Parts: sequence; structure tokens; C-alpha cells
Amino acid sequence: MAHKYEITRDYIQKLKDIIRAEDKNLALSQMATLHPADLAEIFDFLSLEEVLFLFRLLDEEVAADVLVEIEEDDRERLLKALPSEDIAQKYLDNMDSDDAADVLADMSEQRQEEVLSKMDDMDQAGDIVDLLNYSEDSAGGIMAKEYIVVKENWTVDECIKEIRRLVEEVEEVFYVYVLNDDEVLQGILSLKTLLISPANRKAINLCEKDIISVKTDMEDEDVGKIMQKYDLVVLPVVDSLGRLVGRITIDDVVDVIRDEAEKDYQMISGISEDVEPDDRLLVQTRARLPWLIIGLVGGILGAKVIGFFKPELAQETAFVMFLPLIAAMAGNVGVQSSSIIVQGLASNSIHMSSIARRVFREMRISVVNGIILSVLMLVYNLLVGEGYLLTATVSLALFTVIIFASIFGTFVPLILNRYKVDPALATGPFITTTNDIMGLLIYLALTNMLL
Amino acid sequence: MAHKYEITRDYIQKLKDIIRAEDKNLALSQMATLHPADLAEIFDFLSLEEVLFLFRLLDEEVAADVLVEIEEDDRERLLKALPSEDIAQKYLDNMDSDDAADVLADMSEQRQEEVLSKMDDMDQAGDIVDLLNYSEDSAGGIMAKEYIVVKENWTVDECIKEIRRLVEEVEEVFYVYVLNDDEVLQGILSLKTLLISPANRKAINLCEKDIISVKTDMEDEDVGKIMQKYDLVVLPVVDSLGRLVGRITIDDVVDVIRDEAEKDYQMISGISEDVEPDDRLLVQTRARLPWLIIGLVGGILGAKVIGFFKPELAQETAFVMFLPLIAAMAGNVGVQSSSIIVQGLASNSIHMSSIARRVFREMRISVVNGIILSVLMLVYNLLVGEGYLLTATVSLALFTVIIFASIFGTFVPLILNRYKVDPALATGPFITTTNDIMGLLIYLALTNMLL
Repeated sequence: MAHKYEITRDYIQKLKDIIRAEDKNLALSQMATLHPADLAEIFDFLSLEEVLFLFRLLDEEVAADVLVEIEEDDRERLLKALPSEDIAQKYLDNMDSDDAADVLADMSEQRQEEVLSKMDDMDQAGDIVDLLNYSEDSAGGIMAKEYIVVKENWTVDECIKEIRRLVEEVEEVFYVYVLNDDEVLQGILSLKTLLISPANRKAINLCEKDIISVKTDMEDEDVGKIMQKYDLVVLPVVDSLGRLVGRITIDDVVDVIRDEAEKDYQMISGISEDVEPDDRLLVQTRARLPWLIIGLVGGILGAKVIGFFKPELAQETAFVMFLPLIAAMAGNVGVQSSSIIVQGLASNSIHMSSIARRVFREMRISVVNGIILSVLMLVYNLLVGEGYLLTATVSLALFTVIIFASIFGTFVPLILNRYKVDPALATGPFITTTNDIMGLLIYLALTNMLL
Repeated sequence: MAHKYEITRDYIQKLKDIIRAEDKNLALSQMATLHPADLAEIFDFLSLEEVLFLFRLLDEEVAADVLVEIEEDDRERLLKALPSEDIAQKYLDNMDSDDAADVLADMSEQRQEEVLSKMDDMDQAGDIVDLLNYSEDSAGGIMAKEYIVVKENWTVDECIKEIRRLVEEVEEVFYVYVLNDDEVLQGILSLKTLLISPANRKAINLCEKDIISVKTDMEDEDVGKIMQKYDLVVLPVVDSLGRLVGRITIDDVVDVIRDEAEKDYQMISGISEDVEPDDRLLVQTRARLPWLIIGLVGGILGAKVIGFFKPELAQETAFVMFLPLIAAMAGNVGVQSSSIIVQGLASNSIHMSSIARRVFREMRISVVNGIILSVLMLVYNLLVGEGYLLTATVSLALFTVIIFASIFGTFVPLILNRYKVDPALATGPFITTTNDIMGLLIYLALTNMLL
């Protein structure tokens, strides 16, 4: 019973052979013990034709789950190959409304309308259309319409009857929502409480009234923060009148939390889109090239800075050796400062403190690091017998550059954040490159003065 | 009822004034409407004395929740100031066993024993000792002992009686676990099913038997992946005989998923510990300085490479301008390749493919990027009137460097991963610096040949 499933090369090959032989029974028995999430993973290794062969064999409910779990690229291709009627009646009807809306969002608007018009379950179609109206990144965009509501004056018995009535439609139920006659959310009632309470008690007297809910327009990131902070499994979503319009489950928010972390990671590594290692060449290039061009432009500006000091270069070549070192250290220090601020902002651990105080804190750290590093540099240069003047210049430049890069690295994400721009932008190549150039400028100016 | 709480400077100041006036009633009324997670956040802004004043006013259960939610640094300080007896009898007794184990893990071993010996609830003490034996990063280390078990031949009525008996001890219950006489897990039974099923049906006939469980020694990261993949809210943990020993809830795993993402982020930004912006100077320096020293050593090696070509430098100063550009581009390209591989490995989207195939894919991308960037460079240098030979050399070097850096950036994380080293190491300053040096070497060697 323990979880042991793993995709192997052999298994995929076996499956491909079965498909080639068009052995439907064998294919079905191969897939019988697999979870839809496993099937979705396996489909990633098969051609569209192979996927279609297997997909058509699946039970409608399993197929619907696979459509939800499958990777977006694969899903788009699969949806294009399936008839609208099948999508509408076999699969969307068998999904939770939020998942159905996500699947529809992958289609063109024309196809969306075509599919929606063919749905049998008009309630479900209405829910999906409602959900499609909300921004993808808002509470409304990630909530679902599957939940059970009870009226405040219902008894435990009446509540249980309602659960029994809706048991097919709403798969996982941990709470029911208690509404008044105006549909305004009054509280939540756990199944545990229903189970252990006398049959004639009223819902309103049993429910937890001090609950946390969010509005439809709250950003999904903030929804994630709230569910994490208060350890919530499900969160009700209300409209501006306090009427219940949806519920968000923790598994949807886990994806938001992970996506958020990945976005910052991609920003710092100079990749601008959500790219997987197996994405197409064009997608990969589009995601990476702009950042490299920024780096190139920065490098050209750096070359201009060096060119500006060219006469000195001809006189003194020894200091040229340290040009890349100074530029790289400026970049390294700047990224450290920026990313710690970005993380602090993301986890909400930076509050209320003024920019000045924050910059001052970072400066203290960089003074310590700067002293240690420039002394190390000094000792090295003396040991290898570089001239005293060069040795002093390099260490002084290193120290100055570290201080400046760290102030700059702290300042920029805080400023971006204040003006509602994603502070993670500061960790990307744009700012690193700027730090490089600043490093060169400081070094060359110091060299010019001292040598 | 909607969630509106936000900490303001004014609120903190008001609270500090109340504490200074030692107005216990006012302090209590200020805190009355706050969630323990909010209190924990507020405590972050107060001195230890102020925190102690408020903490002692709190109801034991709320205080226990605050201890669980509070930041680790604050918690350590607070625990040192509280008497062992209070910790044992007022707070640990009121926590879930996994949270209690986490709190105890923050103390010295001697203090742990002292606190444990003073606990009233010997069952809870036993559970905590059990949990402390598991590695922090394993399923055993994040599981809790609070769950409800029923025997396979019990009726629905008997199950409900058991839930009623344990209702105080186990706060959130969504499922009960069905065991046979040997304590081996047979299935899980949702409260929903209990609620809608006839009173005399047997647990074993109602429960879901095709369930996913994990062993105690599974790594917490893998637990996170499984709960995400299969959208699980709670996951049973079994020993090697299949006997139930704990359960993991999704909120504990959300922390693991976030920590994992943050670890990769810190690695790429050159920060080696879990550091918050407000951590002490020493902690900050310890986390950052080693990476900077690696960068410095790399810079010195780079200087040595340049020094090796010094005679040429005296003859031709123009190409020096492009030294930092070439080094920086090598670093940028290398980080892009490494981080996309790291992310792919983390999300399991790289499977079964050989290293050679992966390197080939990355090479294709870098050939495209390399051609575009070196043509841009060529056009620029021609436009500003640099010599043809220099122009050709710089572009050729840029192209070569991009190809090499991307191969290197792909290769290293894959190799690290194969030898069970964290591939994220490849995105840190160590490899970036190596790429810088390689870039310099290629550029200088080409210059040497062509100029």
C-alpha cells in the first residue's frame, strides 16, 4: 500500500509497444493501478497519437483528472486534438469548477465559447463562466464553486441531509458554510462538530464564527500568505457584501507559493519566463536572450568606461589584471544585498522599517566584509610582490566598491517595492551589470588618482 | 469578519505604552481579538521584557500557539526566560506533538530532559520523545501523533463514539485511520463517509483502501513532492511493517516546500545559511563572506591569467576594454544554464534523459544566443569604428565563451546530482567565478592568436 510508483524507461517502452500493437485490453490493465497524476506524468513521454490512444480508453472521470494534472504544453496539444463535444460533456462536467476554468483558459476564446455551449450541466457551465471573469492571479481566479452551504437556522440533521444530497458533486468536504437568508457568510461548521453534536442543535449555535475570509480581488500571493500564516486548509471567498462566492483549498495555494518562489529564482538567474528544461528552442531563447543583451549592453558601457581611461592603460598594465576581479566582486556583493531584501519582502519579515535604517544595516555588514576581503587582497598582493602603490590601490578600490555595491543592492529593491514594482527585478542581470560598471568606474577613477 | 489585520507602527507604540504603564486589563483587551499568529508577529517588535509581560497574561492555549508560531530566534530567547515547569505543563501539553517536538528541539539536551521530566501528560511526553528520535528532515521528523484510529470491524456508531472521546485531544479531524488487529493500516475513512453512512456499517467496508502512505525515513522534500503531486491534505506515515505511526498535514509540508525554494534561491545569490534581513551581523557575515572569498580567489586566478599574457597587453590596449564584458557574459550564460537544470531537477521534470542529450539541447540554445549576441557585438564595434581585427576577435571570443559557459553550466549540476550533491551548488559564485576565468582564458588565448 505504501507509495512506490516510479516511471522507468522500460515501462515507457513497454507501453509504447502495447500502443503500437493496438492492444486495448493490455493497455487498460497497464494503466489500471495508476493515479491520474502518474498517468499525466507518463503522457509527457509519449507522442500525441500515443497519448490519444490511451486517453480514449480511460474512464471519463479518470480522463478528466488526467486533463487537470497534465503539463500545460501537453494539455494544449491534447485539447486541440479532442472534439469540443467530448471536452464539454465527458471531461469538464467531471471536474471541479476551478480546474475546468483553468483548462478552458488554455483555449482560444472562440473555442471556449464553442465548448461551453456544448456543456450539458448548465450549473457547471455557469460556474465556469463566473470564474473565467476573475483575474488569474486573484482569489477569484483560484477559487472553486464546489462547497456545501447550510442555513443558519438548520438543525444538525438538516445539515447532514444536505451533505448527503450533494455528496456526488462535492468530493472532499471538511467544513460546511453557514449563511443567513441574505447569503452572507456567518461561520463555518466542521464535519467533526456535526458528527458529535445532537441532531436537533442549530447550525448557527455550533459553528465557528470568528473566521478568516478574503475578497475575490485579493492577490493570490496574499491569499497564500494568509493560508500559510494561519495554517488554513480551506479559505472562504466573499464578495463586497460578505456573501459567499467560492472557496480556496490549500493545494491550489501550494502551487501559487511554489510559482512565486520559482519566479524570484528565474529573475535572479536571468530567465524571464516560466521555462522548463524541455521547452522549445524559441521559448528558451525568448526567455534568456533579453537578459543577455542587457548584459552585453552593460559590458559595452563598461568597455566605454575603460576606453575613457585608455591613456593610463598604456602606461600601467599591471592594474588591468584586477579589472575583472573588481567588476565581479561588485556584482557578487550587490546580488547578496538585493536578494536578502527581496526574500525579506516576500516573507513579510521586513516591515515598518525605513529605507535609511535598512541601508545602514547592510552597510555595517558590507564594511565588515569589505575590510576582511580587502585585507586578504592586500596580504596576497604583498606576498606575490606586487608594487606597494598597486597593492594599496586595488585594496582601497575593492573596499569602496563593496560598500557602494551593497548600498546600491539594498536601495534598489526597496525603491522598486515602494513604487509597486517587483523588487526581484533588482536581483536580475540589469542591476548586476550596473554594479559591474560602477565597480569599474570606481576602480579606474581611484587608479587614475593614485597611480 | 473579513481578514483585515495589519501591524502598524502606531499599534506597536500603543502596546509599548500600555506595557510601560503595566496596565494588564488594557493589554489583554488589546490582544483579545488577535490570532496567535498575529501575536507572534507583534512579539517580533518588542523587547524580551515586553514580550514576557504580555505572554504571561495570555490564556495557556493561546500562549502555546504563540510559542509554535513565533520566529525561531525570538522563541529561543523566550524559552530561556520561562521556567521549565511552565513550559512543560502549561505550553507543551497544549501543543500538537510535532509542534512540541519542534519547540523542544530549540533547547539544549539538558534543558530538554529537564522540561520533559516535568510534563504531566506522560502520553504526550512519550510521543514527543518518539518524534525527537527521527531526523528533522524526514517524514518522521515532520509527522504528528495526533490522529484517530478505529478498528476495521468497528461500526460507524463505534467510530463516532471514538471521535467523541478524542475530540479534545485532536483538533482538526478530516479522516480516521482504519487498522487491523496488528495495528497495520488498512485504509482511511473520511468524516463525510461516516456522516452519511448507516450506523451499523463496518469501517473496513466503507474506507478507501487504495491510499498513499510513506515510511518514516522518507526525506521531507520527497514527502512534499508526493503531497503536491497527489493533492493530499494529510498523509499517513507507517513503519516498515505497515503499522501507522504518524500523520503529516499539508501545512507542515508547505513550510518544507517554501524552505526548499528559498535554499536554492540563497545558493544562487551566494548566501549559505537561512538568513533573515534582521539577523545579527555575525550571522550575516558568516553566511556571505565565504562566497565572497571564493569570488576573490577566482578574481585573483583571473588576474593571474591576464598576467600570463602581460607582454601582449603592453602592445595592444584596445582589447582590454572588453575583458570585463567577456568575463561577465560567461558568468551570465553559465548561471542561466545551471539554474534551469536545477529547477528541472527540483520539479522532477528532468527524468531518464542522458547527460549527453541534455548538454546537446543546451548547446543548441546557446548557439542561437551566441550567434545573435556576437553579431550584435560585431555591428556595434564596426559602427563605433574599432579595427576589423579587434572586432572579429571580440565577437569570436564572445561566441566561443557563450558555448563553453553553457556546456559547463549544464554539465556541472547534472554531475553533482548524479553523485548526490545538491545541484544548486552549481548556481552559486563558485561556478560563476570558474566561468569568468574560463571566459578570460578563451578571450586572451584568441587575442593572442589573432591580434
